[in-house]
Amino acid sequence: MTVLQMTADELQQFLARDFGQVAEDFTVERADGAGLCLRLRVADRHLRPGGTVSGPAMFGLADVAMYLAILARIGPVALAVTTNCSIDFMRKPVAGRDLLAEARVLKLGRVLAVGDVLIFSEGEGQPVARAGLTYSIPPK
Amino acid sequence: MTVLQMTADELQQFLARDFGQVAEDFTVERADGAGLCLRLRVADRHLRPGGTVSGPAMFGLADVAMYLAILARIGPVALAVTTNCSIDFMRKPVAGRDLLAEARVLKLGRVLAVGDVLIFSEGEGQPVARAGLTYSIPPK
Amino acid sequence: MTVLQMTADELQQFLARDFGQVAEDFTVERADGAGLCLRLRVADRHLRPGGTVSGPAMFGLADVAMYLAILARIGPVALAVTTNCSIDFMRKPVAGRDLLAEARVLKLGRVLAVGDVLIFSEGEGQPVARAGLTYSIPPK
Amino acid sequence: MTVLQMTADELQQFLARDFGQVAEDFTVERADGAGLCLRLRVADRHLRPGGTVSGPAMFGLADVAMYLAILARIGPVALAVTTNCSIDFMRKPVAGRDLLAEARVLKLGRVLAVGDVLIFSEGEGQPVARAGLTYSIPPK
Repeated sequence: MTVLQMTADELQQFLARDFGQVAEDFTVERADGAGLCLRLRVADRHLRPGGTVSGPAMFGLADVAMYLAILARIGPVALAVTTNCSIDFMRKPVAGRDLLAEARVLKLGRVLAVGDVLIFSEGEGQPVARAGLTYSIPPK
Repeated sequence: MTVLQMTADELQQFLARDFGQVAEDFTVERADGAGLCLRLRVADRHLRPGGTVSGPAMFGLADVAMYLAILARIGPVALAVTTNCSIDFMRKPVAGRDLLAEARVLKLGRVLAVGDVLIFSEGEGQPVARAGLTYSIPPK
Repeated sequence: MTVLQMTADELQQFLARDFGQVAEDFTVERADGAGLCLRLRVADRHLRPGGTVSGPAMFGLADVAMYLAILARIGPVALAVTTNCSIDFMRKPVAGRDLLAEARVLKLGRVLAVGDVLIFSEGEGQPVARAGLTYSIPPK
Repeated sequence: MTVLQMTADELQQFLARDFGQVAEDFTVERADGAGLCLRLRVADRHLRPGGTVSGPAMFGLADVAMYLAILARIGPVALAVTTNCSIDFMRKPVAGRDLLAEARVLKLGRVLAVGDVLIFSEGEGQPVARAGLTYSIPPK
């Protein structure tokens, strides 16, 4: 069974303390053995012309979601670094809606962690994007 | 609801007829609305020194699994072409076991189809590899 | 020989007109048959704690560089959409330096364009990141 | 300046000794500071219906080319393992021609090596595929 080292609340507090400038963009909706759900509270600064969420904002959402999903498993001590992200943009996000990222950790190794993320417009069943991500975990 | 155009049996027959040389490597275990499960019947020609399944054999399994998952949805008329595959190798496959690929279609558009695949050693709960794949669907 | 439809100046004007909010981040340094060089004028909003450029900012740089490299080839009429990006983060950017992205178009097809990007801290010979990107080109 | 630990001949002998079953598929054409060129000697077993080289054969070519490019730099002692490959298939290979892979190492770190590969049909200027690959380098 997967034991978590940090709750959703603790992850949110970690974000606020260590990532002050982006923490207000994100809300940790859920963290459990199945993975983590992170909300992007969509604001004007995330939008491209036309009103849809920009690629970099979706990339950032996937990246932070997986980062927190790993921290939930290993605790706040280590500083994991993104080494690879392969992201597919599949549909246009629905205008005026928040995005929800569902992240799951598929491997938590000694030096690498691997997982994937599905991103949805809130209330929609079809994902707008998917990503696979790898993190390097520094030695203690 | 997802309606399938081809059953697991029809997909297996399609493989045998159109991909004679590799068809004997693969068994379609399941095809339904949730996706497709494809077995790689591991033989000596799939192994690397040391006895584990080679990277190209796992890549081929992911590729054929997604290809069949798309055909199950659009029927055998179209000739989809792989345009991108991003694959993560996470664990060593268990020696002497078949591999099972679980493929799901995340987007089926007019010109592109996108999906992902998890590969397991039979009987194991932790995936050995994951892949995201994109196919180009030619105009009719 | 590759004929360009837009010069570096025209691409810069296009950015300013159609991407007002991010245009000031970027300077088109060069556009020719070999590809395109785009500068990220690094500012506080691009930084993570510790002072290095954030992953989303590097993703955005790669994405805009490839977008402009494609437009240079097909002209400003079409609206290309990013469908996939696989990015490797290899080194920490040098603090206090701009980033330069070297983008090249490897395929310009009827419906898909594919290229890759190397990102450097200005003045350094070793890349901080590399990316492969695919764009969908809508029918005229 | 990049110093190589192994010449093209030594890499070829390494292949023959440690990868007996696939060694006859490949010829190391060149290994120098700029990278490595590996030839896939195309045979019937590499072809898909229609006579073009299969995706798994191209994946295998990219994978072995990068593996050898890394060994050329670190010597034959270490056993590098592929952790990620993102490959774009861009054009159909020319029937009846060998494929040539041009691999370059972009990062050679303590635990990870990253590089990319372009694959060409011999005699053609436009690549048929490109790949970015990451290898994990085990501790000594």
